[in-house]
Amino acid sequence: MGKNLTSRSEDYSRWYNELVVKADLAENSGVRGCMVIKPYGFAIWEKMQAQLDKMFKETGHENAYFPLFIPKSYLSKEASHVEGFAKECAVVTHYRLKNAEDGSGIVVDEEAKLEEELIVRPTSETIIWDTYRRWIQSYRDLPIMVNQWANVVRWEMRTRLFLRTAEFLWQEGHTAHATRQEAMDEAEQMMHVYADFAESYMGVPVIKGTKTESERFAGAEETFCIEALMQDGKALQAGTSHFLGQNFAKAFDVKFATKEGKQDFVWATSWGVSTRLMGALIMTHSDDNGLVLPPKLAPIQVVIVPIYKGMEQLDAIAERVEPLIKSLREKGISVKFDKRDTHKPGFKFNEYELKGVPVRLAVGQRDLESGTFEVARRDTLEKESVKAEEIVDRITALLEDIQKNIYQKALDFRSDHITKVDTYEEFKNVLEEKGGFISAHWDGTNETEERIKNETKATIRCIPFPPEKEEGSCMVTGNPSVQRVLFAKAY
Amino acid sequence: MGKNLTSRSEDYSRWYNELVVKADLAENSGVRGCMVIKPYGFAIWEKMQAQLDKMFKETGHENAYFPLFIPKSYLSKEASHVEGFAKECAVVTHYRLKNAEDGSGIVVDEEAKLEEELIVRPTSETIIWDTYRRWIQSYRDLPIMVNQWANVVRWEMRTRLFLRTAEFLWQEGHTAHATRQEAMDEAEQMMHVYADFAESYMGVPVIKGTKTESERFAGAEETFCIEALMQDGKALQAGTSHFLGQNFAKAFDVKFATKEGKQDFVWATSWGVSTRLMGALIMTHSDDNGLVLPPKLAPIQVVIVPIYKGMEQLDAIAERVEPLIKSLREKGISVKFDKRDTHKPGFKFNEYELKGVPVRLAVGQRDLESGTFEVARRDTLEKESVKAEEIVDRITALLEDIQKNIYQKALDFRSDHITKVDTYEEFKNVLEEKGGFISAHWDGTNETEERIKNETKATIRCIPFPPEKEEGSCMVTGNPSVQRVLFAKAY
Repeated sequence: MGKNLTSRSEDYSRWYNELVVKADLAENSGVRGCMVIKPYGFAIWEKMQAQLDKMFKETGHENAYFPLFIPKSYLSKEASHVEGFAKECAVVTHYRLKNAEDGSGIVVDEEAKLEEELIVRPTSETIIWDTYRRWIQSYRDLPIMVNQWANVVRWEMRTRLFLRTAEFLWQEGHTAHATRQEAMDEAEQMMHVYADFAESYMGVPVIKGTKTESERFAGAEETFCIEALMQDGKALQAGTSHFLGQNFAKAFDVKFATKEGKQDFVWATSWGVSTRLMGALIMTHSDDNGLVLPPKLAPIQVVIVPIYKGMEQLDAIAERVEPLIKSLREKGISVKFDKRDTHKPGFKFNEYELKGVPVRLAVGQRDLESGTFEVARRDTLEKESVKAEEIVDRITALLEDIQKNIYQKALDFRSDHITKVDTYEEFKNVLEEKGGFISAHWDGTNETEERIKNETKATIRCIPFPPEKEEGSCMVTGNPSVQRVLFAKAY
Repeated sequence: MGKNLTSRSEDYSRWYNELVVKADLAENSGVRGCMVIKPYGFAIWEKMQAQLDKMFKETGHENAYFPLFIPKSYLSKEASHVEGFAKECAVVTHYRLKNAEDGSGIVVDEEAKLEEELIVRPTSETIIWDTYRRWIQSYRDLPIMVNQWANVVRWEMRTRLFLRTAEFLWQEGHTAHATRQEAMDEAEQMMHVYADFAESYMGVPVIKGTKTESERFAGAEETFCIEALMQDGKALQAGTSHFLGQNFAKAFDVKFATKEGKQDFVWATSWGVSTRLMGALIMTHSDDNGLVLPPKLAPIQVVIVPIYKGMEQLDAIAERVEPLIKSLREKGISVKFDKRDTHKPGFKFNEYELKGVPVRLAVGQRDLESGTFEVARRDTLEKESVKAEEIVDRITALLEDIQKNIYQKALDFRSDHITKVDTYEEFKNVLEEKGGFISAHWDGTNETEERIKNETKATIRCIPFPPEKEEGSCMVTGNPSVQRVLFAKAY
């Protein structure tokens, strides 16, 4: 198996598209913009889900499930929300097919038109707050700390595997609180949970911040976010957490009796990460040889490739590695022993490099004789020979080291790609020649933000959080500014 | 909290509907036929998912994800499949909303009509076999052993929480094989996996069997099933596994090169269980006091209710139970200590009975003095006083005993409700007076099956598997029969 992978320097975008398909992560389906997540890609997503779910439960959340469909009228109850989503909604208008009378196949049955059209959820605030109205009467019913794992649909015109697809998988937390402060704390907390997950598990360093008004979620009063940087110098929004104020409670009339016996609207948050994280994971670490996976999320952490001639040698190798496989599995390390006789070792080496397996062991006749294993690490491609009696400890240490190393590498790259600028000229030069995050003063107006976006395609990725105050003047208008914000071109 | 639960003898159907809502399992949503699965209900479903997923992986399956939408043209490629599903399909015809010009709100944008309408998947054979065509070239690519956890939509006219909803959650396995025998073995294997899960985890005894031609899945050549019996004497199909022959491979042109170098169509299976299992779980064990949950699937296995006056007594109780909670959790037992001061012990007792928590501990001042706990088991409602030093062992034993006991109780009920009959007269009497499964001879024709269904509303639930041969004659036509089949009225 030759990898035939376009190199990053040649064409970064093509490298990504090829890699996703060749590493068996996902592919396009027969439905425009909808992807098939293949077993190997899904196994990574499952690991991400399991860890995130654990972190949500540790912070007091429970899972639930709400309908896929949203009555059209619900969507329009929150004005800015409908404005944000109406253009990309998939609309269900009928519920029955029938055979076309002209024999041309099956058609929609016009008699089976729905009384009210249904939207396939692009996000679930409206259907959930319609439900919360029934769940909440008193302060005793609060807080509600609910999350759901679900598929959502946003009819995007230009799609890319994992990064932007018409249907994607995500989780959406929806919490309800008695006070503004509690809701704000929750929204901030979930940003920290996401950042911790991105850094400690995905090995992806992120910058925490808040969004400017124009980049906020449709219906939010504050959006917290985490922003990652890809190897091509473009930013990728990896997760958002919204303080929704009382907007949805007002739209859906969700009031509660306070401890003092008054009626008040409920305070809300929502927060989500999606299969887009797969894109961030792939683009942060991978190289021209293929995927590089953090050991904590790799479906296969160690692969053992036997190098043999004839069944007798294979049997001898199998016997040798059996106790090793057992020891590793007892330590919770996932191991695959690839004894397929349909493929040569070189083919397998390529395949596991392409698939980003963190540690590869090769065992041949000479290793059997000398009591050693050839060990290769995926991140640096370094090889070493390790004695059998030290191999379990060495693998354990290597997995930890790879996890740290790829994070550090990504962090170093990002540190090299945050540039402070004070003039618009400099801003444009850095954006053009180097990319990455640009830290600059901005006067806080939509107009200036819009102008910069139109002229350079860079957007304000976030206002770093917690705020770092610094007096300055806007690089474009010269008007006063109290802190720098981060610009970048973004996915 | 008074339970105010209708009794089973009064109105079984109403008892079920009330129980589902009052025990916080699920409720109807603002979208016709679509339910909201509430956190407590979802926690049970999560436990079911986790165990099933483990069993699927142990039998060699991997998870993947396929699109929610299916192009209309795909559905019609397999003739009997489209016939089975076309009448209950939700159809997406548009992808954009816009403001109505008359100011009446938002409407579907007629300019944003899809070129080809999309079906919201009622099941995924068609989109998956369209994908498998790209994955399968040679016998080396087989078998494909894939499962997906997903939501599906079938636009049913009459819906009931968990039992029949327009949208439901399920898993659907879709496997591809090189030989007929291998596919048939897989389909049979998954029936056994489902039966094992139902009996060992849900505590629901099931009968394994195959479906008659008229009851088969649309597109299948053989359907294996597991059938459970509810307390009202009606049967409930709890899981199905289909041998699809080469039907979908032919419809989607999925061929492979055999070892011998010939081209052949691929053999298929599909198999699924859904949130309907929640209905089976609820109806099998629960009583007039509420839910009865098998310990293996109970989100809370043990609840501790303090009985106290004033904070001092509560603190003393909390101190006493703390090491107990720790010991139980170390054994993997989930415990809730309910120290809410907003509700009285009697209210809490009612609540946990209603929610089916298997074991309840009560601790008051007198227990503190005597070093005991009052222990109540949910299945029999029996109480006992247990010494502190024996409590952990006792709880462990109780949980095991409850799991066994509720299964045995359900099994005894079913044994009492399988009646052998030899005449149609007797058949109708038993069906009317006792219900349950009726074992009778049938001549194997669709006509007789249809007649019995029309005249009595009973259907053939299954032909028991493995077959038990017995010469006889059809109770209706007198024509020869080689084995008895099981009839019942069913959900």
